[in-house]
Amino acid sequence: MNCILLPAANFSNESAYINAVAQIEHVNQVLGAKVGDTLKIGQLEGNLGTAIIADITPERIDLCEISFVTAPPPKLDLTVVLALPRPKVLRRLIMDMTALGVRDIILINSYRTQKSYWQSPMLSRLDEFVLEGLQQGIDTVAPRISLQKRFKPFVEDELANLITNRAIVAHPYAELSFSEYVQQQLESSESPQKSILPSMVFIGAEGGWIDYEVELLAKQGCQAVHIGARILRTEAAVNAILGQWLL
Amino acid sequence: MNCILLPAANFSNESAYINAVAQIEHVNQVLGAKVGDTLKIGQLEGNLGTAIIADITPERIDLCEISFVTAPPPKLDLTVVLALPRPKVLRRLIMDMTALGVRDIILINSYRTQKSYWQSPMLSRLDEFVLEGLQQGIDTVAPRISLQKRFKPFVEDELANLITNRAIVAHPYAELSFSEYVQQQLESSESPQKSILPSMVFIGAEGGWIDYEVELLAKQGCQAVHIGARILRTEAAVNAILGQWLL
Repeated sequence: MNCILLPAANFSNESAYINAVAQIEHVNQVLGAKVGDTLKIGQLEGNLGTAIIADITPERIDLCEISFVTAPPPKLDLTVVLALPRPKVLRRLIMDMTALGVRDIILINSYRTQKSYWQSPMLSRLDEFVLEGLQQGIDTVAPRISLQKRFKPFVEDELANLITNRAIVAHPYAELSFSEYVQQQLESSESPQKSILPSMVFIGAEGGWIDYEVELLAKQGCQAVHIGARILRTEAAVNAILGQWLL
Repeated sequence: MNCILLPAANFSNESAYINAVAQIEHVNQVLGAKVGDTLKIGQLEGNLGTAIIADITPERIDLCEISFVTAPPPKLDLTVVLALPRPKVLRRLIMDMTALGVRDIILINSYRTQKSYWQSPMLSRLDEFVLEGLQQGIDTVAPRISLQKRFKPFVEDELANLITNRAIVAHPYAELSFSEYVQQQLESSESPQKSILPSMVFIGAEGGWIDYEVELLAKQGCQAVHIGARILRTEAAVNAILGQWLL
């Protein structure tokens, strides 16, 4: 937790309060903060800044001298379409994509997604994982998350309207590598490197996409690219791919 | 587990056997494989290939028709020097760096490493985590791992002999970004992009490096670079940075 994010309702004039259990525990146990200490805070969907601790009780921490000094960092111009992973790794994946600044996340069904994953109680906790990711990445603006339980209708009927720019699908058996793809785009464009990165990336979960899915995506203009022969855990693959947007 | 790696001792002529509990469970429960089925296998420090299941008992799976068809993928020309992280995340970090093909891993003390981490029983299980990473990334050659419990003597007395090429330290407060650094190297070199990547990267754990550590590294020629304003979990940062070597 690199900042403490509070909803607008917790602010009034120049004061605010923390009442979420996890945040109170963080202030007391991780930061070991006392009355008079300064905390890094932010307002959800608002700005980032600092506050002074005015009072600490077991259920509530009162803050004063709220000072908002910076706007949140810009979001990446990027939609990640992720095959719904095992519930166990969903929390960390949502946290990481949020911390990295992905603007849109679409969790989609795939041939290798087990049906039971869609019944997981973890899917009702996405807001909580997003908050963790924002507090990790020091951001205040949540990504938009949508769920797509049917792959084919989404790809055939909705995808064309969502692709605003280049789209790729990560696939270990693709002929083209990510860097070759970027090089091709660079050579056919006058733009600096940042703006030729894709604006949409499909990433499979354990086992990846099947050929039929990759072919269906190709028909909509999604280029299949690989990131090398090595097969990575879903979390590792997502971070290794999204790292390209950061550096 | 994208392949099953066995030590040389488990092979004889054209047959071999699996006797590790985790591997037997994987064959039975994840793969649901039967006698006559083909498995992807590898020999530790050797080659990759396939084998046919000859017999399955609760304690042992016998394999026949061993066929080695490919050499393991090349290692990355890279040493990662990682501040020893919380034991809880050590397993996944070692797995991921191994799966990504890092050739040398040095776990080092840092100001923000808690002393208790060095007493963790997880440190005696590194071989197990490496095996998991190799079986994930489909590789047979373990990275070399060493532990350095003293930061200053290592940096001042040993580092100079280990830096064979460019070295960087990941630091969120550096002025230069990773991509600016790579661009600088490109402009002062005739090499293609791959070969101008650093051969050594220092990555902090939770809380990162302190200024004193970054300055000590700078004296040995390690350039501090950032990967953006967003602060990532150690695992996410490692994968986001190492992704640059893959693509």
